[in-house]
Amino acid sequence: MKLASLKGGRDGRLVVVSRDLTRAALAGDITPTLQAALDDWARIAPLLQALYEQVEADSTATFRFRERDCASPLPRAFQWADGSAYLNHVELVRKARGAEMPASFLSEPLIYQGGSDAFLGPRDPIFLHNAQHGLDLEAEIAVVTDDVPMGVGPVAARESILLVMLVNDITLRGLVPDEIAKGFGFFQSKPNSAFSPVAVTPDELGSAWDGGRLSRPLLSSIDGAPLGRPNAGADMIFDFGQLIAHAARTRPLSAGTIIGSGTVSNRGADGGPGLPIAKGGLGYSCLIEQRTVETLTEGAARTPFLKAGDVVRIEMLDDERHSIFGAIEQHVEAR
Amino acid sequence: MKLASLKGGRDGRLVVVSRDLTRAALAGDITPTLQAALDDWARIAPLLQALYEQVEADSTATFRFRERDCASPLPRAFQWADGSAYLNHVELVRKARGAEMPASFLSEPLIYQGGSDAFLGPRDPIFLHNAQHGLDLEAEIAVVTDDVPMGVGPVAARESILLVMLVNDITLRGLVPDEIAKGFGFFQSKPNSAFSPVAVTPDELGSAWDGGRLSRPLLSSIDGAPLGRPNAGADMIFDFGQLIAHAARTRPLSAGTIIGSGTVSNRGADGGPGLPIAKGGLGYSCLIEQRTVETLTEGAARTPFLKAGDVVRIEMLDDERHSIFGAIEQHVEAR
Repeated sequence: MKLASLKGGRDGRLVVVSRDLTRAALAGDITPTLQAALDDWARIAPLLQALYEQVEADSTATFRFRERDCASPLPRAFQWADGSAYLNHVELVRKARGAEMPASFLSEPLIYQGGSDAFLGPRDPIFLHNAQHGLDLEAEIAVVTDDVPMGVGPVAARESILLVMLVNDITLRGLVPDEIAKGFGFFQSKPNSAFSPVAVTPDELGSAWDGGRLSRPLLSSIDGAPLGRPNAGADMIFDFGQLIAHAARTRPLSAGTIIGSGTVSNRGADGGPGLPIAKGGLGYSCLIEQRTVETLTEGAARTPFLKAGDVVRIEMLDDERHSIFGAIEQHVEAR
Repeated sequence: MKLASLKGGRDGRLVVVSRDLTRAALAGDITPTLQAALDDWARIAPLLQALYEQVEADSTATFRFRERDCASPLPRAFQWADGSAYLNHVELVRKARGAEMPASFLSEPLIYQGGSDAFLGPRDPIFLHNAQHGLDLEAEIAVVTDDVPMGVGPVAARESILLVMLVNDITLRGLVPDEIAKGFGFFQSKPNSAFSPVAVTPDELGSAWDGGRLSRPLLSSIDGAPLGRPNAGADMIFDFGQLIAHAARTRPLSAGTIIGSGTVSNRGADGGPGLPIAKGGLGYSCLIEQRTVETLTEGAARTPFLKAGDVVRIEMLDDERHSIFGAIEQHVEAR
């Protein structure tokens, strides 16, 4: 099934959305918010699924679904923990700031605790306060979990995945090096993230979902110009089961925890960092990677960071080229 | 007023507690949970205050308040961001692991994004899974904020402080160095924190509260033996207003955000790292500081980390030696 939260209050209003994203039905008679559904998923999910089947069969009252009316599926969450599972991304961003690769990288996931007290809606503007901050997108996949016991294994952890979404993990590149140097992780360099209008249960993803990875191209563009189309299932060296198990090593995770994949990034056919789309490659899901590749191949970064007026779009299509999650589409506004 | 959350459901049941912590009244007729109260504080707080006055006047039905029935005041929260505002603590923990002081430390607060999807109750056991993890307490002060606009200044930020609590920021010392080396901040090394049974509005703190610092000794003990009694208002180089302003530099903070002070630590009278209580000093609010001082003065750490059977107690008393927040009292259990 497909779920969304219409804007309204701090937690939104839960709706069930038709598979083709054209119609929706309010789920308020079942439960008011997505977090409330997740808090009692075993009981609530079958009721939402029944409503979804009615929406699909056109046997219940629905209204026109508009992605622009949506908050993020969880407008705020009790946990947002973002991994960094694509080696190509980690190598390129560390190269960009002249940092070492952590020795443990290949054996243990990188994951940071993100701010989750308020997320941007999928069509909300991104405010640019200071051009020196180096505003960048990061297009990623994220999953929402059920309660996860401490010490869960990476295979069992897959069973806790209830929903899948897309995310724009907005990053202020200029603030990253100082925060990394302090050793306390990201804080000011990671303002509020935005998620796709719709969260879907894994069964909606068919054979592209193997339980831990989503093998479809993740499309990102700026002002309509394609930036990246890497396959999110390729080069993901830790799957979501492994990321969840890592997060749950010393504490349980509560229902509604969001776990991110990190910026989706594919290596080139030659094993190298790949090529921009304009040069025939699969491109990148953030600007810093493209800038680093430009620096390596042309001596200097040509692609600027995001600037006022830019439009960031992140989406994933099914085999019929229909949008699966709706699109994250955010204008950058100076403020 | 004084507020607590009795255990029950994921968010507890809000109660108003008498000043002397002996009696309480359910607040369910006003609002079900503390987070719900914080979401609409301007409207709800006067109603809770009126109930508090009835409890104090004994003009409403109350029941015996038991700290052991409590969850943390916010059993789960949308944000827990912990500062490190006591220079003595930062110097000692970095010395313990042979790490440099960050150059920016004196001009810019250290703060990390903590996990907030589930907190331990103030009397819940702490499970010790692996003695090599180096289980340690960290006794701190924490505040709960209202909505905070992005870019707030450090003086205006003080006005957003709605509640004050104590916290035990449980830390696995053995896991810290590898996580710091990865640059992504704490995750596995910071399992669930526990907060005091009661959260209080700043007016309950009298002249000990100056709007940004709480100037009273923070008492911590292990198995009844005093570990620390540093004054939480002394040597706090960034006050809560500055910590909140730092956290809100690039994004707003939502109502119910918890901001921690970091481990309370006082310098000695000679400007040095102070002495253990057994040697006439004010002691420490975590074991790693005492171990580092032992290593410096005696050549080796003698005090062990927490072990099964230990009882950690954290409390703060008023002028009449009555407990202000109730006590965090947690048994360590092997599991």
